[in-house]
Amino acid sequence: MELTKHDIATPALIVDLPVLERNLVTMAEFARTHGKQLRPHMKTHKCVPLARRQIELGAVGLCSATVPEMEVLVTSGISNVLLTSPLTSPGKIAHVATLAERCSTLMVAVDHPKQVEMYGDAMTSGARDLGVMIDLDVGDHRTGLLPGKPALELARLVADTPGLRLRGLQAYSGSSSHVEGFAQRRNHSLKVMARAIETRDLLETNGLSVPILSGGSTGTYNIDGELEGLTELQVGSYVFMDLDYQRTGGRDGSVYEDFQPALTVLTTVVSANHRSHVTLDAGVKAFATDQPFAPQARHVQGVTYEFFGDEFGRLRLDEPDREIRLGDRLEFVVPHCDPTVNLYEQMYVCRGERVEHIWPIMNRSAAVRLEASG
Amino acid sequence: MELTKHDIATPALIVDLPVLERNLVTMAEFARTHGKQLRPHMKTHKCVPLARRQIELGAVGLCSATVPEMEVLVTSGISNVLLTSPLTSPGKIAHVATLAERCSTLMVAVDHPKQVEMYGDAMTSGARDLGVMIDLDVGDHRTGLLPGKPALELARLVADTPGLRLRGLQAYSGSSSHVEGFAQRRNHSLKVMARAIETRDLLETNGLSVPILSGGSTGTYNIDGELEGLTELQVGSYVFMDLDYQRTGGRDGSVYEDFQPALTVLTTVVSANHRSHVTLDAGVKAFATDQPFAPQARHVQGVTYEFFGDEFGRLRLDEPDREIRLGDRLEFVVPHCDPTVNLYEQMYVCRGERVEHIWPIMNRSAAVRLEASG
Repeated sequence: MELTKHDIATPALIVDLPVLERNLVTMAEFARTHGKQLRPHMKTHKCVPLARRQIELGAVGLCSATVPEMEVLVTSGISNVLLTSPLTSPGKIAHVATLAERCSTLMVAVDHPKQVEMYGDAMTSGARDLGVMIDLDVGDHRTGLLPGKPALELARLVADTPGLRLRGLQAYSGSSSHVEGFAQRRNHSLKVMARAIETRDLLETNGLSVPILSGGSTGTYNIDGELEGLTELQVGSYVFMDLDYQRTGGRDGSVYEDFQPALTVLTTVVSANHRSHVTLDAGVKAFATDQPFAPQARHVQGVTYEFFGDEFGRLRLDEPDREIRLGDRLEFVVPHCDPTVNLYEQMYVCRGERVEHIWPIMNRSAAVRLEASG
Repeated sequence: MELTKHDIATPALIVDLPVLERNLVTMAEFARTHGKQLRPHMKTHKCVPLARRQIELGAVGLCSATVPEMEVLVTSGISNVLLTSPLTSPGKIAHVATLAERCSTLMVAVDHPKQVEMYGDAMTSGARDLGVMIDLDVGDHRTGLLPGKPALELARLVADTPGLRLRGLQAYSGSSSHVEGFAQRRNHSLKVMARAIETRDLLETNGLSVPILSGGSTGTYNIDGELEGLTELQVGSYVFMDLDYQRTGGRDGSVYEDFQPALTVLTTVVSANHRSHVTLDAGVKAFATDQPFAPQARHVQGVTYEFFGDEFGRLRLDEPDREIRLGDRLEFVVPHCDPTVNLYEQMYVCRGERVEHIWPIMNRSAAVRLEASG
């Protein structure tokens, strides 16, 4: 049976396939023409078919934010995976080690000697090494340790630990990625990334091999991507884009348009008893609410979405350019893609009105497995 | 194998079983001593074992916010279910009708003649009737139609539609439930509920039978629960409580303490390279962000949680009353229970450190089934 958007029960996550494909190709071509590896982030889409398409288009591997993301990728045949988050739980570290003993291309990020020790202790078989990246704090103060000497010391510890193999440096700057205005963003990113490149030089001067310097983001891909020292781009949101990134501004204007919004939430008008507004079946459970701006209606002007509880949205009919009636279906571009995807089990991948694929989104349960079972 | 909290991979949803049990019993006893039926809301917990416990303790049935919630309850043997959200999608209405033809105790809420017509058209077999509640807009302007004459007209339409049976009125006031200060909340609720009671009288004067008047919330259970006209309480959050409800104030003080927080998120310190703060593995994907206040640490004072991206939280070490180290595990009371539960696949139900149950939370996929398949 051929499915159309009309057949989808709302609220539902919709992907515009031609736009997605254009975004994927644009980034892949940028990486290729700039001599960079592409390592997109699983955390954005949590979707194996999408990861496979990224690999088909030339990505060297994927980033994962969690152990379950890494496991799902590995068991799907995508084995070149970097776990970008430092871990400190024995169960999770043991689980990564189990995966790494079956798969020589896994890498993890560390920012503390204790983590190095734990990973080293877990890699007991001696059959394979676990790749390790030193996570640099280039300004976010979120994870990572300071560039320069602290990083050198941790890198030495990794190099001296049996079972571990130093692969390079991770320098992710979340604070660069969302600086408004391209020139300002460029200045910010070049400044923070300079410290990562100096650190790589420091390690190499000290006889350590640093084949990988991984960094960048959707906001800085064409800034960091021009840095000679960077070897690979850790980009995520470019696949879907969102209102948050659009507002940061592009190289040529006030809207960031290198990539186009491919992700929407489809909703239905379930109550329409007022002149001023209608009520939609998509609220706090249907859109991530971490941004200070609201979902934006597609294909209709002069309306404003407001959250209206867990299950509902209020669509203010300011000056609507067409009649909005009970039962109407409306699509909204999302404020922030990653945590919105995280609210759904599947995405309906559409070409126009036709549903071409239903792609599963990784189970939440994977994220809460027991420590005891690894 | 006996599991403890220590075995749980973070971030994870934890339920304190003795506190939960006390909350459940407190509400059940209130309803019993006040001669009201209890119809708790599935949307809060999306958890069948918890719904079963509510029934064991005397609840007449459950409320559901979505068709999948209704279906999960019915297939689990809980057949007295009220779907509180008006529907307008033919596929969903057909699906409810299919359930209703197997189960005589289902009820739906309507707020528009079109919905009545659609439900009537869907109830074709004649074997059973679908119970219908008139959804009153008592001030939220979210769903429902105006009390008084508009409600009377819609009730008459229901009564005259074959396949449907008028069961009563639904009067939910979300705006009452969160009024700060008990006296103010009481005034607000009594005022809006008076219109619902008048409407019930109007329907009965006009020869319509109104056995049920369903309303109330965790914020107003002991206000609406004393109204003579109300027959049943639609309460949700009391099972878990959250910071949002605590702040509304109780009958006897500035903190609403009739029910105690039973729900926390367990996190781990994954990076600790700063004096000012540590980084936790729980961010926007681990806590709902729809409230303007932050998760609150348990068992440690002098620290402040701040969101730090999708995967991380920053714990500011203002004046911590104990040392917080890499690998430490911390629990946080959640700002808003319903949408936080919605982020997880399961809850770890604990007595002290011991995990007594792992209760599944309804799959998200159930919420995005195809229209075409019902």
